[in-house]
Amino acid sequence: MTRRDLLALSTLPLARAARGQGPEVRPNFIFIMADDMGRDELGCYGQKLIRTPHMDRFAAEGLRFTDCYAGASVCAPSRSVLMTGQHTGHTTVRANASRRTGGRVALRTEDRTVAEVLKGPEWRGAFDEERAYATGIFGKWGLGEPGSTGLPNDHGFDEWFGFLNQQHAHNHYPQYLWRNRTREPLRGNRDGAKREYASDLFLREALHFIDRHRYEPFFLYFTPTIPHAAFESPELGEYAGQPWPEEHKHYAAMVTRFDTAVGRIMARLKETGLDDNTLVFVTSDNGGASNFAPFASMGPLRGRKGSITEGGLRVPMLARWPGKIRAGGVSALPWSFQDVLPTMADLAGARGIPSNVDGISIAPALLGKEQNAERPLYWEQFSGPGFEQAVRLGRWKAIRRGLQAPVALYDLEADIGEAKDVAAAHPGVVKRITEYLAVCRTESAEYPVARPWRG
Amino acid sequence: MTRRDLLALSTLPLARAARGQGPEVRPNFIFIMADDMGRDELGCYGQKLIRTPHMDRFAAEGLRFTDCYAGASVCAPSRSVLMTGQHTGHTTVRANASRRTGGRVALRTEDRTVAEVLKGPEWRGAFDEERAYATGIFGKWGLGEPGSTGLPNDHGFDEWFGFLNQQHAHNHYPQYLWRNRTREPLRGNRDGAKREYASDLFLREALHFIDRHRYEPFFLYFTPTIPHAAFESPELGEYAGQPWPEEHKHYAAMVTRFDTAVGRIMARLKETGLDDNTLVFVTSDNGGASNFAPFASMGPLRGRKGSITEGGLRVPMLARWPGKIRAGGVSALPWSFQDVLPTMADLAGARGIPSNVDGISIAPALLGKEQNAERPLYWEQFSGPGFEQAVRLGRWKAIRRGLQAPVALYDLEADIGEAKDVAAAHPGVVKRITEYLAVCRTESAEYPVARPWRG
Repeated sequence: MTRRDLLALSTLPLARAARGQGPEVRPNFIFIMADDMGRDELGCYGQKLIRTPHMDRFAAEGLRFTDCYAGASVCAPSRSVLMTGQHTGHTTVRANASRRTGGRVALRTEDRTVAEVLKGPEWRGAFDEERAYATGIFGKWGLGEPGSTGLPNDHGFDEWFGFLNQQHAHNHYPQYLWRNRTREPLRGNRDGAKREYASDLFLREALHFIDRHRYEPFFLYFTPTIPHAAFESPELGEYAGQPWPEEHKHYAAMVTRFDTAVGRIMARLKETGLDDNTLVFVTSDNGGASNFAPFASMGPLRGRKGSITEGGLRVPMLARWPGKIRAGGVSALPWSFQDVLPTMADLAGARGIPSNVDGISIAPALLGKEQNAERPLYWEQFSGPGFEQAVRLGRWKAIRRGLQAPVALYDLEADIGEAKDVAAAHPGVVKRITEYLAVCRTESAEYPVARPWRG
Repeated sequence: MTRRDLLALSTLPLARAARGQGPEVRPNFIFIMADDMGRDELGCYGQKLIRTPHMDRFAAEGLRFTDCYAGASVCAPSRSVLMTGQHTGHTTVRANASRRTGGRVALRTEDRTVAEVLKGPEWRGAFDEERAYATGIFGKWGLGEPGSTGLPNDHGFDEWFGFLNQQHAHNHYPQYLWRNRTREPLRGNRDGAKREYASDLFLREALHFIDRHRYEPFFLYFTPTIPHAAFESPELGEYAGQPWPEEHKHYAAMVTRFDTAVGRIMARLKETGLDDNTLVFVTSDNGGASNFAPFASMGPLRGRKGSITEGGLRVPMLARWPGKIRAGGVSALPWSFQDVLPTMADLAGARGIPSNVDGISIAPALLGKEQNAERPLYWEQFSGPGFEQAVRLGRWKAIRRGLQAPVALYDLEADIGEAKDVAAAHPGVVKRITEYLAVCRTESAEYPVARPWRG
């Protein structure tokens, strides 16, 4: 495979979308994303202790992906990849903090999100209202602080309610949340009271959004902040009587609360008659963080949130679309959040997909057609002075911990736990991946790598 | 009674509010107002054909007023009186159209609504957030067009969804509604489809408002556009099989739909635990308009919407506040929409009640205490070149059709139908009322009376 081939794989044509043609009836999209929920915390991925009946039913009615990857192993860059369709070697927000300033990095005005793409190329002005999607995000954003260029309402979302800031989101009973450009006080949480659980409010808004936009195509991005720390659930429910540490009970209750929210949304889709025309995804923004041993949150995967190994990157991913996606399927297609934008754009017949998108449409895989699985997926991450890169290519997983470091290679088919570096035995694969690493990223002023890090 | 006495009656001190003291826990207020619903269309007022079980139960749990009056006999001025606490001799919007321009008149910037008063005196700037009410209006406004000084969001309402314009409101399946300062398209009504019934959307927003503001004091003004013409209900329900004209079936279904909305709101109050701390009013903006004979919408009252006789002005009025308002009471106290602002302000302990308010607090009557019923209530209205005035004073109702016309006097205790002018027999009463008429109003440039009308 030449360098040209590798590049071509990253920019597969989106044939239908490129022709500017769309389906007769544009589907609705609901992207439901948990916060720090490990892949194997779902019953349908093998969980035994935490109950997730709604997601299990969802999986039985849809398609379950075993090899889907988040945009990154931590929050902000993963969401940046999701929104822009660019991997962490290109997207604007590549880490939770800038290496240059230590502060947060915001999406730039010129970054175009999946919401903007669904709105249409001229959405900022008089866009094609007849074809435009109604768009809403309820939960955590993480890609722009007040006053920055990265606010949801400036990036294609008509409606926004939630946490702009990830630190703010670590409190499930906040004093306020953002509603569009205004701080909305949550008086139920005043003076130490804990009466307004943020993720419950996000669900309420999401349901209201569905009600209000049922007669037009919509994109709902529902991203509650559970089961992220603090591990605190309003009720322990079925776990109250378990002989577990309190923290474990709360954690399990948070996962089940997320599951219940999924169930509420699916019920509302049925009530409103939207079930058949709505493609729903359920996933998590990165690997599980808590990793409480009894829950085996990442199953056999190595590492957890923050790791560039599979446990940090792989996430649960379910997709359901009655009549379009075959029920009960399981797919081992490797794909990642970079593919969400092109996939939705493809299915919506949206024009104006930015040329800098790294992802491809996985609509064929969703719809049960042939899809070429042999393309590289890329991640990079920053930790102190460190710089780590990873590539997934077919059965192979490569990790490089520094630009000059050797490439470690793992055969995921034989070694899902990434225990044994087999680079020496596969020089051809290492060469292909090394060539790809040479071209797959651009340097970012916010996260300098090539220059010595001044810490 | 001297002229001074009469004036004093119009400006009774609001003792507690004037001291700037408020209750420990400020009550929520919900003001539910139907559109053109006649007083006697409710079962609790004697209706036999139209079913209103929720309002009947509401009345049994609260207080039912037999002698409550709208602000005017038509829409816009009645709402202006409600919002400003000034009767039609002082309030800014005194008719559905200006006599000067033929166009609509908007509230002026300096007009202060009940929502502004509840917000507190400095609400436009950094008001006392801790004491401020959350305020929302869902339904019909009618007191300002886009670009005018009369928009709800400029008059104390945090949240607004509905019809600004009354003509627009005559279509129950509109192409758009206003959400705050933005037109929100209703795509369910596109291309002739009728899937989004405006008053159902108002209910949805009202319930969402209650959910979101349950932990802070709120003022919800819920003013759907039923049973106003066009007479069109999404379902005929229990009336489908009646041997009535279609229009009558639709009309009855609209009243019952309003009743169901009242029931939904009351149920939500119970679910959210707000029942005990919420004072709810149910009323109508003026007399019934349709007056379909079988329904006897105004019972024994004379006239209907547009009439200055009792049938145009008297409205159903129920008030419910568990533990505060005695259940099952009936009051014959004459009062009117001008009293709503001072009453709510009184109960909320709000400061900054405008000195130009005509109404008084009827909190004593609500709470079962003594209330002086002997004060004049005033209305004026314009119809072509005509000018009509009415005064209710105790048992008496006076009508004058022109500044120089004689005062006609009716004894409502003996003659609820205003059939017999008894002015000649009661010169003292006529003199008192004539003196009051000389001082109770100011001239408005929009509705000139004193000068000859130029048509």
